[in-house]
Amino acid sequence: MSDTVTTPTVARLSTRDADFAQRLDTLLDWDGVSDHAVQQRVDSILSQVKQQGDVAVVEATNRFDRLSVSSMSELQLTQEQLKRAYDGLPESQRKALSAAAERIRRYHERQKPESWQYTEADGTVLGQKVSPIDRAGIYVPGGKAAYPSSVLMNAIPAHVAGVDEIVMVVPTPGGVLNDMVLAAAHLAGVDYVFTIGGAQAIAALAYGTETVPRVDKIVGPGNIYVATAKRAVFGQVGIDMIAGPSEILVVSDGLTDPDWLAMDLFSQAEHDEDAQAILVSWDTDHLQAVEASIERLLPTLEREEIVRASLRRRGALVACEDKQEAITLINRIAPEHLELSVAEPQDWLEGIRHAGAIFMGRYTAEALGDYCAGPNHVLPTSGTARFSSPLGVYDFQKRSSIIHCSAEGASSLGGIASELARGESLTAHARSAEYRIRR
Amino acid sequence: MSDTVTTPTVARLSTRDADFAQRLDTLLDWDGVSDHAVQQRVDSILSQVKQQGDVAVVEATNRFDRLSVSSMSELQLTQEQLKRAYDGLPESQRKALSAAAERIRRYHERQKPESWQYTEADGTVLGQKVSPIDRAGIYVPGGKAAYPSSVLMNAIPAHVAGVDEIVMVVPTPGGVLNDMVLAAAHLAGVDYVFTIGGAQAIAALAYGTETVPRVDKIVGPGNIYVATAKRAVFGQVGIDMIAGPSEILVVSDGLTDPDWLAMDLFSQAEHDEDAQAILVSWDTDHLQAVEASIERLLPTLEREEIVRASLRRRGALVACEDKQEAITLINRIAPEHLELSVAEPQDWLEGIRHAGAIFMGRYTAEALGDYCAGPNHVLPTSGTARFSSPLGVYDFQKRSSIIHCSAEGASSLGGIASELARGESLTAHARSAEYRIRR
Repeated sequence: MSDTVTTPTVARLSTRDADFAQRLDTLLDWDGVSDHAVQQRVDSILSQVKQQGDVAVVEATNRFDRLSVSSMSELQLTQEQLKRAYDGLPESQRKALSAAAERIRRYHERQKPESWQYTEADGTVLGQKVSPIDRAGIYVPGGKAAYPSSVLMNAIPAHVAGVDEIVMVVPTPGGVLNDMVLAAAHLAGVDYVFTIGGAQAIAALAYGTETVPRVDKIVGPGNIYVATAKRAVFGQVGIDMIAGPSEILVVSDGLTDPDWLAMDLFSQAEHDEDAQAILVSWDTDHLQAVEASIERLLPTLEREEIVRASLRRRGALVACEDKQEAITLINRIAPEHLELSVAEPQDWLEGIRHAGAIFMGRYTAEALGDYCAGPNHVLPTSGTARFSSPLGVYDFQKRSSIIHCSAEGASSLGGIASELARGESLTAHARSAEYRIRR
Repeated sequence: MSDTVTTPTVARLSTRDADFAQRLDTLLDWDGVSDHAVQQRVDSILSQVKQQGDVAVVEATNRFDRLSVSSMSELQLTQEQLKRAYDGLPESQRKALSAAAERIRRYHERQKPESWQYTEADGTVLGQKVSPIDRAGIYVPGGKAAYPSSVLMNAIPAHVAGVDEIVMVVPTPGGVLNDMVLAAAHLAGVDYVFTIGGAQAIAALAYGTETVPRVDKIVGPGNIYVATAKRAVFGQVGIDMIAGPSEILVVSDGLTDPDWLAMDLFSQAEHDEDAQAILVSWDTDHLQAVEASIERLLPTLEREEIVRASLRRRGALVACEDKQEAITLINRIAPEHLELSVAEPQDWLEGIRHAGAIFMGRYTAEALGDYCAGPNHVLPTSGTARFSSPLGVYDFQKRSSIIHCSAEGASSLGGIASELARGESLTAHARSAEYRIRR
């Protein structure tokens, strides 16, 4: 420790600061909208793949992933390759992956909704039929961050939902395959794997090519090209969400080991330089202790540079007044990950309106949920937890309304429908309903 | 009836035609993607509203809806105005609207999902918390087709979901207010009504202005400008879907009165010239009888010209082989509305994988579902029933995952997470998990 004044790694904020609301807004601000240049490049790739199919996918993949393949068949992995990757893993990894897969499956089984119907007094039946989509496309990021856990988190809910075929795409820049990713695809029962990425992979999944089967919905996060392409093909196929950088909000009551909290913040910050880690507490001494832990532990991290950059750009230690103010902050931020490192986390639940996943108590590190607790780790980012949900079985299913009118029911409903249809000047609607009124 | 050869109003197709698959593709083809000019106009409106708020909304509304108001206050309706509209309706309309609202509410109550959680052997608790979005924006088309039923269908599920505030926008081109629309807003408990539409209304809801509260999700169909704007703001706010023209697929076993079927097809076709009405049957005499009904009844329709144009452009009478082939066609088309005008419609249900709403039996005219059966009439169009659902309570809610590890649970999960995190080279994740492993 020297005597020179050093700039702290993480910004210190207090809700008492006159400019707090504005500083918080600036901190949280994330403009996920792609610029015009990205938009145009994506549009051009999409239309090339739509028109030329495999040829365009091969060309774009060679160009962007620095490959030199001559046909799509070189960009497809066989089930044997996946199995070989799985069999070849060290036993400890294979066991951990299987244990995680089993827990993820068990949790998602609980999400399965049932079809239902009810019969009214006059015999009319109303209901809702739940059915899976036929074919799902899952996008798994490659390169810097190829995550086998993401394969499990995307493919298992699709399987539980009853999806017929799962098509996975994962780019392999420079041709580097990740054995754990392939092993996870084997374990999760993925039907097709193509080593393609970017907008060209989204286009191939959305439109189909000679080799890549057209899917009904595309899920999974990706970079700005992937996000822009997903937005563009939305409507042609379903999409899950537009993902932004990952973030965590930790609330501590001051009684959790500061080293634990520092490491929890690091585990978010190490994802990339845009990731966001924020700690909130009403205990200012505690905030200072966590800050000291951060400075002390930072140099021991493998990904120190990324963590440091992320904390400097988007991290914060926030002093608030009390529990109530902490809850207000939570709902303002609508965090992707919320860690409630407090004594009685269940007392907080009712007040929390917006959060992707809630990690309760000092033992529940976000990392446990990232890999194996069971719930999904694909979560709404950048405040979108205000209106969206974790990836789930429901993302791979859809509902159909069921209406079966009895003769009596149709007769009485016909009167109401006729009145309203005439009010809307839709007289063919009215007459169609009136035919069903008993004379 | 003259002897001259007349072009039939509706195309006749048969699954036996050599070019059937191609003709069907052409018939169903609907490119909802907006062209570059629309995109640019929408982008410009969005950024103006984002930067200038009310001023930009007023300016755009005056321009597009031929008004000359000077401030937003002239574009907001009061609760008193809504109530007055409701009180002023003829009693028959007021009763019909209330009966429809009550049935819609009752059906949607059944859609409410429950939060759930379960405890594992080691005391770890996992679950899912369901909560409503804070504020919903509903877009109600105005002008040619201002539908009070759409107000009920959008606002009631939001209410049932527990949404705090509902903000409705409805354009009033030329300043014409529709009393039934206002009455429906009163009945459905809408909190704010602004008489604005188009991309400027979507922008106001997504970004908020001095007068229009920012919402968390925007639902409801609109024209190409509305659809393009919704796609652009997706991520900033949630959206329901990108709506295309409305369509129906009717399957008849040949025993339903041909006049009824003709009128059912008309009730779809009268929406607009892009609407699509298709009838499928294996009984060719019956198809001919329905065709005769169409030609005979067409001149009796108030909206004859629209119906005729729609049937000519996008309608079809399709001869198929049998029930099984009809089901294949249904799943290929994934219709918004499916009418099963057959003797035992419940025997068909299992085979039907994709449809927005299924109207079962001869008595269940689509018009009954459009107004008052109970299920929602905002449905996935243009084949998107492959991956999306009717508008529902679930559109106004989202889920948060709950993870509460016991000390023992964290210790065993910590081992798995650590193994997988190290496999992904995310060592801060690993160390965060390892802190929770018991020594």
